[in-house]
Amino acid sequence: MAHMPVAKEFEHTRQFTESLCSPLSIEDYQPQLVDYASPPKWHLAHTTWFFEEMILKKFAAGYSEYDPEFGYLFNSYYNQVGERIARSARGDITKPDVDEVYLYRKHVDKHMNDVLENAPTEEVIQLAILGINHEQQHQELLLTDLKYTLGHNPLFPVYDKSVNLVNDLNSEQGLLNIDEGLYDIGYDGTGFHFDNECERHKVYLNAYSLEKNLVTNGDYIEFIEDNGYNKFEHWLDDGWHWMQQNNIQSPLYWHKVDGQWHHYTFSGLIPVATDAILAHVSYYEAFAFASWKGKRLPTEFEWEVASDQLPWGKRWEWTNSAYLPYPGFKISKGAVGEYNGKFMINQMVLRGASTATAKGQSRKSYRNFFHPHLQWQYSGIRLAQ
Amino acid sequence: MAHMPVAKEFEHTRQFTESLCSPLSIEDYQPQLVDYASPPKWHLAHTTWFFEEMILKKFAAGYSEYDPEFGYLFNSYYNQVGERIARSARGDITKPDVDEVYLYRKHVDKHMNDVLENAPTEEVIQLAILGINHEQQHQELLLTDLKYTLGHNPLFPVYDKSVNLVNDLNSEQGLLNIDEGLYDIGYDGTGFHFDNECERHKVYLNAYSLEKNLVTNGDYIEFIEDNGYNKFEHWLDDGWHWMQQNNIQSPLYWHKVDGQWHHYTFSGLIPVATDAILAHVSYYEAFAFASWKGKRLPTEFEWEVASDQLPWGKRWEWTNSAYLPYPGFKISKGAVGEYNGKFMINQMVLRGASTATAKGQSRKSYRNFFHPHLQWQYSGIRLAQ
Amino acid sequence: MAHMPVAKEFEHTRQFTESLCSPLSIEDYQPQLVDYASPPKWHLAHTTWFFEEMILKKFAAGYSEYDPEFGYLFNSYYNQVGERIARSARGDITKPDVDEVYLYRKHVDKHMNDVLENAPTEEVIQLAILGINHEQQHQELLLTDLKYTLGHNPLFPVYDKSVNLVNDLNSEQGLLNIDEGLYDIGYDGTGFHFDNECERHKVYLNAYSLEKNLVTNGDYIEFIEDNGYNKFEHWLDDGWHWMQQNNIQSPLYWHKVDGQWHHYTFSGLIPVATDAILAHVSYYEAFAFASWKGKRLPTEFEWEVASDQLPWGKRWEWTNSAYLPYPGFKISKGAVGEYNGKFMINQMVLRGASTATAKGQSRKSYRNFFHPHLQWQYSGIRLAQ
Amino acid sequence: MAHMPVAKEFEHTRQFTESLCSPLSIEDYQPQLVDYASPPKWHLAHTTWFFEEMILKKFAAGYSEYDPEFGYLFNSYYNQVGERIARSARGDITKPDVDEVYLYRKHVDKHMNDVLENAPTEEVIQLAILGINHEQQHQELLLTDLKYTLGHNPLFPVYDKSVNLVNDLNSEQGLLNIDEGLYDIGYDGTGFHFDNECERHKVYLNAYSLEKNLVTNGDYIEFIEDNGYNKFEHWLDDGWHWMQQNNIQSPLYWHKVDGQWHHYTFSGLIPVATDAILAHVSYYEAFAFASWKGKRLPTEFEWEVASDQLPWGKRWEWTNSAYLPYPGFKISKGAVGEYNGKFMINQMVLRGASTATAKGQSRKSYRNFFHPHLQWQYSGIRLAQ
Repeated sequence: MAHMPVAKEFEHTRQFTESLCSPLSIEDYQPQLVDYASPPKWHLAHTTWFFEEMILKKFAAGYSEYDPEFGYLFNSYYNQVGERIARSARGDITKPDVDEVYLYRKHVDKHMNDVLENAPTEEVIQLAILGINHEQQHQELLLTDLKYTLGHNPLFPVYDKSVNLVNDLNSEQGLLNIDEGLYDIGYDGTGFHFDNECERHKVYLNAYSLEKNLVTNGDYIEFIEDNGYNKFEHWLDDGWHWMQQNNIQSPLYWHKVDGQWHHYTFSGLIPVATDAILAHVSYYEAFAFASWKGKRLPTEFEWEVASDQLPWGKRWEWTNSAYLPYPGFKISKGAVGEYNGKFMINQMVLRGASTATAKGQSRKSYRNFFHPHLQWQYSGIRLAQ
Repeated sequence: MAHMPVAKEFEHTRQFTESLCSPLSIEDYQPQLVDYASPPKWHLAHTTWFFEEMILKKFAAGYSEYDPEFGYLFNSYYNQVGERIARSARGDITKPDVDEVYLYRKHVDKHMNDVLENAPTEEVIQLAILGINHEQQHQELLLTDLKYTLGHNPLFPVYDKSVNLVNDLNSEQGLLNIDEGLYDIGYDGTGFHFDNECERHKVYLNAYSLEKNLVTNGDYIEFIEDNGYNKFEHWLDDGWHWMQQNNIQSPLYWHKVDGQWHHYTFSGLIPVATDAILAHVSYYEAFAFASWKGKRLPTEFEWEVASDQLPWGKRWEWTNSAYLPYPGFKISKGAVGEYNGKFMINQMVLRGASTATAKGQSRKSYRNFFHPHLQWQYSGIRLAQ
Repeated sequence: MAHMPVAKEFEHTRQFTESLCSPLSIEDYQPQLVDYASPPKWHLAHTTWFFEEMILKKFAAGYSEYDPEFGYLFNSYYNQVGERIARSARGDITKPDVDEVYLYRKHVDKHMNDVLENAPTEEVIQLAILGINHEQQHQELLLTDLKYTLGHNPLFPVYDKSVNLVNDLNSEQGLLNIDEGLYDIGYDGTGFHFDNECERHKVYLNAYSLEKNLVTNGDYIEFIEDNGYNKFEHWLDDGWHWMQQNNIQSPLYWHKVDGQWHHYTFSGLIPVATDAILAHVSYYEAFAFASWKGKRLPTEFEWEVASDQLPWGKRWEWTNSAYLPYPGFKISKGAVGEYNGKFMINQMVLRGASTATAKGQSRKSYRNFFHPHLQWQYSGIRLAQ
Repeated sequence: MAHMPVAKEFEHTRQFTESLCSPLSIEDYQPQLVDYASPPKWHLAHTTWFFEEMILKKFAAGYSEYDPEFGYLFNSYYNQVGERIARSARGDITKPDVDEVYLYRKHVDKHMNDVLENAPTEEVIQLAILGINHEQQHQELLLTDLKYTLGHNPLFPVYDKSVNLVNDLNSEQGLLNIDEGLYDIGYDGTGFHFDNECERHKVYLNAYSLEKNLVTNGDYIEFIEDNGYNKFEHWLDDGWHWMQQNNIQSPLYWHKVDGQWHHYTFSGLIPVATDAILAHVSYYEAFAFASWKGKRLPTEFEWEVASDQLPWGKRWEWTNSAYLPYPGFKISKGAVGEYNGKFMINQMVLRGASTATAKGQSRKSYRNFFHPHLQWQYSGIRLAQ
């Protein structure tokens, strides 16, 4: 039956989220160090609340809410569905505890299973698929947010020795040349995709070339050693002030120990491998590095057009495109419409995927976006010219 | 001779700047209320410093600097030419006083005149034209910054009774329809223009229409009265937080007095004319208004393509385009290269011109740009769909 | 033997701290909502570190530190013994986890027991007594800090239903009159006391009278209902600004529900009992209330002289004395000297004790002290005239 | 006639204030760099408003206010008499201009003269005396606030070459010893004094000694060179954080030029004279210096008792006393009652007087007070033990 894959996908996604938490102690579920990095407990509960709010409360006959207060506690930014606690206060909430959040997940999973196994309508199926994709996005955030917490502990604790998300190497080198012309951009298919990937539309591009390889740690160390952080001629004005006010002199998680660069990873603090692909730089650093190299970052359109001929997926790649709507973009009615459109300001687009990205979130039309000063994603650099 | 118009243009521009200050008391030259609005004294000195630094010190044989400390005091953001005082401290500096700044202007004017009257090289002519355009931009800023100071005085003092920069009316109504197609964008001519208007390049546009009229005060009052400031579904997320944290409930300078909207103008506090064109809204407000109307803001490309068929020039118009480089954009070497490129982040493009804009700064390819929360320019709204 | 009581007192104190944590889930041990309220896990570890640092590392032959990093993590403010993490980052540290902190306590307890049972020197005994008193102070803070966390959870979770620290009633009413004269102030005895209670010295007092009863919730509700929070003539200038900037309109933990004042307690959110003694007001509020009553707060000297004739111990009482050294006060050499003296600025003295105060911390010469805006202790009001 | 001296004193005081401004350019009257240092224009207007508000509006028959808006603009902190502009916005107000403020002064002077020459009541005389003393206090602030503005100008402009307020030398050396005993403290006479100098009351003091000399620049340079700013054992905890967060490494206005300490004075930037008396240190620095010397600061009572036998008046001297009410202190009814009492928190007492102090403000019972981090007064150090 048509809906069976959704039920399976639902189950798989829900289990995978929990498996990411298996190495954690209860304490690790709790803290929030900065407003943009939420606690694991919150991610577990918020993704659950999404299914309860968007599906169960509306489409599951006789469903009774697990706890009416949870909407207030675990809503992220959906103004349509009422008040919520301050985004920066998520780490303050010790009750419900972790055990209860897992009970909440079980409760919602059971009811979602009933819904998905009993001839759901197409609307419900589409909402379930949205919820699954939403949870996959939070899987990535759960990992990057957790890394932020563990990486700021002076003990540099190990998350899982067997997990090594950092030593990706480039598989290809050289330039890919693309001709001038009119190209089609945006999602082109029949599967799930976000509203911000539409409408498909034409973009005219001048001829350009992209490097097949991503910038490595070694490349970036050259920039540092050439005093790149203090050469204002390569920096955007806002980036220059951000860098000075926050005393940034390296990618996030990098520490110089006895003259050698180390970085915090999920396996602990280890030496930086110079041939591995760089991560954890802000857009400002990416821009400055590209300028220092005499090159530039690609636009998201240049990236998408070239993507079929490029190895990608190791790191999110900063582009030189602002996150703005495509022609014909429409915001959906109601709470699901708050998903993407209202963030279309002050953010830059990333393309590709990182090693923390769920499989379902990796396609060439996918648009990630962050404020240009943020370093905590596995964000890296590809050069264009 | 080819350079004569430059000498004349120089003289005219310099005099016009000073004429803008003729209604001021000495006190008005001094304060800086926010970091983005500089004192008149600083504008007078900074535009002068630009000619001294970029031309006289390099090209005027035997020129001796008026005062070596002035570079430190009146440099705005040119890192290439050394340290400078904090941008927010410009109002703190009482010496040199206004009289001395006028002497500084006289000194530089005299030497510039010598240079421009004595067979200047093409390089010098081009730098002089750049300096003239730079000073024209500061004429506009001088007025808008001054308005900020006077408009925040609880006495609402008059700048000049004869100056009325607010009651512009729309001269046309209705929709202008533009066909889908490939269009050329960017400066196309042989006159002066800024580097950010180049290179001329092709952009593909879907069919669209623009309103010939700009949004009026009366239109915006409807938005206010319909509780538009509190309907989150029309706001960008960053805009929603800006509005709430700063308690914004109207355009800048608007005050409700005895139930009627008034606004501060250079003629004092007067009732808002409902048929006049709206000004002093942020991008966030422009976006929310457009959403509330079921429309959208145009991109800068849509605007430029349509501009020959539109009345414009009353208000700067917010577009839905981020300020980013055109394909092939190159930053010039040295200090003049710091003019535009390093601001290409976190800002939105405005097109058109306002009543405070110098004539030389008004052309269809001209790109102004500000952070999306700023209201102090004469920024208004044109709707697209 | 002379040292036996110390060993017993040590054991009892250590166990009592842990018993205070018995109602907690692991999550409750973790967060820190404000810099002045530390997590239970930190209190457990810090008090342990104190014994390790001040006694075991110096006096226990062959003692090997449990973990050299713990000094960095659990030092509070002893600059003498090296760097420490930012005070506001205590809630960020998820490792060591709670289990390990209890192992750390066991390790130190065992070694301390060895030391205390084997003919300790007088110096060691005195340091052990200091450490015991230090831990007793942290027992009180552990409770008040925990209340801050639970009391800011919108679910108002119960700590322990059987614990009710709020319904203390006044046992006496009326005025106590004290004659003008020269009085002795400061610790007078041979038991343990802090350096800030010495030297004993003479103070001349005018005749005065104190109320035997403390201000009740009902008294304070009258102040609120008489608009006392908005009558600037009763407020100190700094207090007025604090109150307005933080939008304070009631004691901490008070909420008006359906027209009735409730407050968060360790038993949950319950109605305020009007005849119970008031707690959780700042010095600023205490001052304003006293002024509104046409009275004043007593000085710490007036309080101490009268204390033998007063019922006290229900609430810490704000005095109108700044926390400053007594004549002849000497700071001890080394880290133990950082205990009290360096805080003698910007704080006001509280006298008495609260229901959260350990028995050993309750004596008439005891001086507690906090910044005047803080509400999170069980701080109340006694009136003088 | 009894009131004649008041009229003369009024005239003299008003003229002296204006004479202090005679070296100023109009620009110097305008800016406010920090909220605690007001512009000269504001001081000129505020002291005038005080006479208008407290005397003319109530006691001058038929007096018509110069401008009703001035109360709003030039009230400092008298909540009783209505709203006022934010304290930090005084430098933003360019209208009324300086000329008009002088007209305002003339207007009020004329009417005050009429009142004082025509058999004023005792109440009016007392209010006039208060106003005169109030203006004398502002004369001192006008100078110290002006120094703050000129001293932060990178040109270090001269106020008046003939004014040298910094090279005071000690006239005596050695210790003054005072016996233990009961002493009377507070104003004792029939002349003008502030409410905070009363009531006269008894204080018991242990035996103590004071240095007859004040600490010199040379003494303080030894502290700096001994790394005193980085020896936490001498610092109060709040002082340590203030010093680190604000990167304080010397008294205010000190700059090291080519290896030698210079300081900004009203005569410009000059080398520090090592034998001259130190000024412009905060309480925190005074405390740390005293601790480093193995001594302490005196209490305000120790200071007052010894004052007849000490040379003083060169610098305000920080005491180790918090600014709190004397026994029996009463706040006056109405706006004049807001003068002193409401500031009795978070401030430390200074005794003596500085070279910027008006003659009338110099008596042994006079209590000045500032927050402990402030350096902009001529505050110095006397050691006790």
